[in-house]
Amino acid sequence: MDGLRLTIVAKIGERKVIETIFRRLSLPTMPIPFGDDVSGVEIRRGMVAVLKMDMLVGKTDVPPGMSFWQAARKAAVINISDFAAKGVKPVALLVSLGLPSDFLKADVTQLADGLNAGAREYGAYVIGGDTSEASDLIVNCSLFGLGKKTLLMLRSGARPGDIVAVTGFFGKSAAGLKVLLENLPAASDVKGVFLDAVLMPRARLKEGLALSAAGVVSASIDSSDGLAWSLYELRKASKVGFVVDNLPVAAEVLRFAKRNGFDASELALYGGEEYELVLTVKPALWNKAVSAVKRVGGSLMRIGKTTKQTDVVLQVKGKTIPIEPRGWEHFKSRR
Amino acid sequence: MDGLRLTIVAKIGERKVIETIFRRLSLPTMPIPFGDDVSGVEIRRGMVAVLKMDMLVGKTDVPPGMSFWQAARKAAVINISDFAAKGVKPVALLVSLGLPSDFLKADVTQLADGLNAGAREYGAYVIGGDTSEASDLIVNCSLFGLGKKTLLMLRSGARPGDIVAVTGFFGKSAAGLKVLLENLPAASDVKGVFLDAVLMPRARLKEGLALSAAGVVSASIDSSDGLAWSLYELRKASKVGFVVDNLPVAAEVLRFAKRNGFDASELALYGGEEYELVLTVKPALWNKAVSAVKRVGGSLMRIGKTTKQTDVVLQVKGKTIPIEPRGWEHFKSRR
Repeated sequence: MDGLRLTIVAKIGERKVIETIFRRLSLPTMPIPFGDDVSGVEIRRGMVAVLKMDMLVGKTDVPPGMSFWQAARKAAVINISDFAAKGVKPVALLVSLGLPSDFLKADVTQLADGLNAGAREYGAYVIGGDTSEASDLIVNCSLFGLGKKTLLMLRSGARPGDIVAVTGFFGKSAAGLKVLLENLPAASDVKGVFLDAVLMPRARLKEGLALSAAGVVSASIDSSDGLAWSLYELRKASKVGFVVDNLPVAAEVLRFAKRNGFDASELALYGGEEYELVLTVKPALWNKAVSAVKRVGGSLMRIGKTTKQTDVVLQVKGKTIPIEPRGWEHFKSRR
Repeated sequence: MDGLRLTIVAKIGERKVIETIFRRLSLPTMPIPFGDDVSGVEIRRGMVAVLKMDMLVGKTDVPPGMSFWQAARKAAVINISDFAAKGVKPVALLVSLGLPSDFLKADVTQLADGLNAGAREYGAYVIGGDTSEASDLIVNCSLFGLGKKTLLMLRSGARPGDIVAVTGFFGKSAAGLKVLLENLPAASDVKGVFLDAVLMPRARLKEGLALSAAGVVSASIDSSDGLAWSLYELRKASKVGFVVDNLPVAAEVLRFAKRNGFDASELALYGGEEYELVLTVKPALWNKAVSAVKRVGGSLMRIGKTTKQTDVVLQVKGKTIPIEPRGWEHFKSRR
């Protein structure tokens, strides 16, 4: 056996695994390219059935302190967040549950309630699914919705000169995971904010739908694998670079990082498990984009600009620092 | 803690787990009732987006002797079989893979090829998905298609006097699993038939689409949990009983059972992991149904009739024997 044949997935990481699969598939003409946040099928002229599937695995995606209700709700929300990033209304959720054979019936009830809550929070319904026996707790959601092809916010439309923006501040989930996993001290009010970010993630659906309806976004992605990684994904799909000159670090994260001797930028850029939208807007449409988001009670923050040069960099106090292509990755990352 | 709260899923079985979940959900008005083979959303007048999700777990659904290619193909086919039973053309497949961290890259390629083969065999495409780290191999497929509401073959339309029919003979998968798991002897030609049934299951898609287009079926289900269980599911949804007077046991299974001292009826009724359609047809439409299936190269076999009395029984040599409500069930069943 040659070395190549014995390569294990832990060595190559999730993204190379997906690439390996991608290369083996016969793909049809698709309204949404393979590898974007969601998949789609054009069911009639201009109308796309949008589909998304994301698996939550107990041992890697459910930190200590997260209840089954919260874990199941999160499984729904992470799928809805991808719909938010594309500007598509979620309609129906299917759920495959993998449960260890000694899983408690009472906890099944918690899972069902969490799934239902996550879906209903965003106007969707859980309409079916399947259960199987598995070694881990697995909550695998599949989400369906309909979107107009022209309004889908793909990853691929960013152009040099576009404004890069986000829908919220970063670093709270990374700080929350440090509090939960490493038991680090945090002031009690700040701790509540961090734990809320980890345990009760929220999809920016209102914002995504408003931006899509306004037709102001050139490219969009959700930040589930971290801000840095999201920028690199937009870069890959749009073939542009980014200068971030206004890193959106949450104020609570700045204080927490100072107290514990962390680099706050590190938490904001590479933490992951955050569900903000990262998007680009043509300067001429910026005011319209800001108003659209404000009207639904959200906020849009300019963090930098899109460049022709394909580097991804941070500008801080006149210095230019490279942003690295890393973030949370299954098989490779360890908490 | 009271006893009830500590009930584990292994004790109550898959069906009670699903019922537990069902009772906690806020369900919308649905074109396909919860618990049918597939789920659906009416996307415009008379047109239904059909969705199905079924999880294949390595340790329970992949017998020894089955390759990764075959396992992945099977994961696609078991979902397509449910579409076949409803008369819906499968269009797009999404796949969530759960892989142990030491899973080989070369085997990922096998999985991708198997998924692609399973989908393409029935005209569908794998268009996206997701991978995660898990303790077991998990291949969770989500299937999408479109169906006319009036042509969907639900479980609920069987009426007393309808003919009960199937698309093929039963017992080969059960015999195949005995050969694989218990290493029982079988003549080599017969062994090939059995192993093919287990390793290369086929969905009766042509048959299901033809029957749906002909508008001749009053109720339909696929037989993945076994013939007996399928009849009980039709019974529950249609509120009828069944008399089976022509048990469709495969000839190879009769010979194998005789040689090894098994009850062939047991294998045919309760084995499961078979993907025939079990359906009901009004007597006046029977000839039309048979022709429709014959035209696509399949065959339809009358096995009995639907009764007002809600018992499910087998009539053999003038004797009436109850058919039991059992079959393969996750959490409870053990191979």
